[in-house]
Amino acid sequence: MTRAVVLLSGGLDSATTLALARHDGMICHALSLDYGQRHHAELEAASNLAHSLGAAEHRVMRLDMGAYGGSALTDASIAVPEAASVGIPVTYVPARNTIMLALALGWAEVVDADAIYIGVNALDYSGYPDCRPDFVAAFQQLANLATKRAVNGAAIEIRAPLIHLSKAEIVLLGMRLGVDYRATVSCYQADNQGRACGRCDSCRLRRQGFEQAGLADPTRYQD
Amino acid sequence: MTRAVVLLSGGLDSATTLALARHDGMICHALSLDYGQRHHAELEAASNLAHSLGAAEHRVMRLDMGAYGGSALTDASIAVPEAASVGIPVTYVPARNTIMLALALGWAEVVDADAIYIGVNALDYSGYPDCRPDFVAAFQQLANLATKRAVNGAAIEIRAPLIHLSKAEIVLLGMRLGVDYRATVSCYQADNQGRACGRCDSCRLRRQGFEQAGLADPTRYQD
Repeated sequence: MTRAVVLLSGGLDSATTLALARHDGMICHALSLDYGQRHHAELEAASNLAHSLGAAEHRVMRLDMGAYGGSALTDASIAVPEAASVGIPVTYVPARNTIMLALALGWAEVVDADAIYIGVNALDYSGYPDCRPDFVAAFQQLANLATKRAVNGAAIEIRAPLIHLSKAEIVLLGMRLGVDYRATVSCYQADNQGRACGRCDSCRLRRQGFEQAGLADPTRYQD
Repeated sequence: MTRAVVLLSGGLDSATTLALARHDGMICHALSLDYGQRHHAELEAASNLAHSLGAAEHRVMRLDMGAYGGSALTDASIAVPEAASVGIPVTYVPARNTIMLALALGWAEVVDADAIYIGVNALDYSGYPDCRPDFVAAFQQLANLATKRAVNGAAIEIRAPLIHLSKAEIVLLGMRLGVDYRATVSCYQADNQGRACGRCDSCRLRRQGFEQAGLADPTRYQD
């Protein structure tokens, strides 16, 4: 049995990723980042999912990314768009996956983990640069040089098992692994109860995924 | 005139790096990380140095790295060693430079900076893996793929101008640039007034630097 740090936002992709890591036989240390997102329903979902999917522990690290602004997800002065975006959308959080992987790397060293799981996805990636395979490969190169563990000969493997899957393939996979998608929160502007707006990019991609998979959409919507 | 994010811990190396960035003509956005270090004298020093060396602004981001422990610098249950260490010392903070560069990268995107300056040093590097030239080069590769700005054709250059210098060369350079080293705090266990212990690895390397440079050591010691 080996050990992994799993990045868990509380959304559909990261929940599926945790289920996969457990399916791989990993002892899972789930890590969420409280980076000043607009709502905390996502973090509550993460906590519930860590428990229901059998993570060994779950920690939330606080980081005030709102302090530097620049994203509709952390800066209240920028509105979340409700029409499809062209190019990189304003919901992009600057360097978010770089920061999350860096924090996961630090914790992976402390718990002596063999792998880090991240639920990035290159197909339905919403236009974010830090969701692409090249980005993950570059972080692997960095991790091979950055850590005490790697210097001692034991690299930490960066695993992005969803990277080449469509949203439909992800939900079909997750259903087989027993993920309760009703408990996940993907919406960029969910309400306090975690109910989705149904209009933002993330809601659109998620709904499309269930449609294309031929599954009923279990998402709890605001109306 | 171009713009840079400068990582500023409040120690000797980062103060010199800020002075160099200013000398390069950069508008400097100084960034310090409050990661639960044992003392806050270092952050106070950073604030004073940002002002005296002419940074355009200075921000402190809080991140509770103490939550995952693993280092003598963030975990109060691990003692700071007072004899020279073999291999990677316990004062190593897991993935610290990876995390600091990741945070700098996010801010660099927001302020549209052309460069990030970091004061890592490969010679007197105290055995930390994330102070080596290969590590910096790997982070540059990552930054080229990770950001909205890079996707749009404008990379962010990672500059580590001290990386091949000895501590003596660093202090000689800094003196020419007008750095007041009395205002810097390098000690791993400085007291509340920022006075150094004179015994930890960091104090040893610093004192040696002044000696080898033939300069009087301006450090304020506890005794």
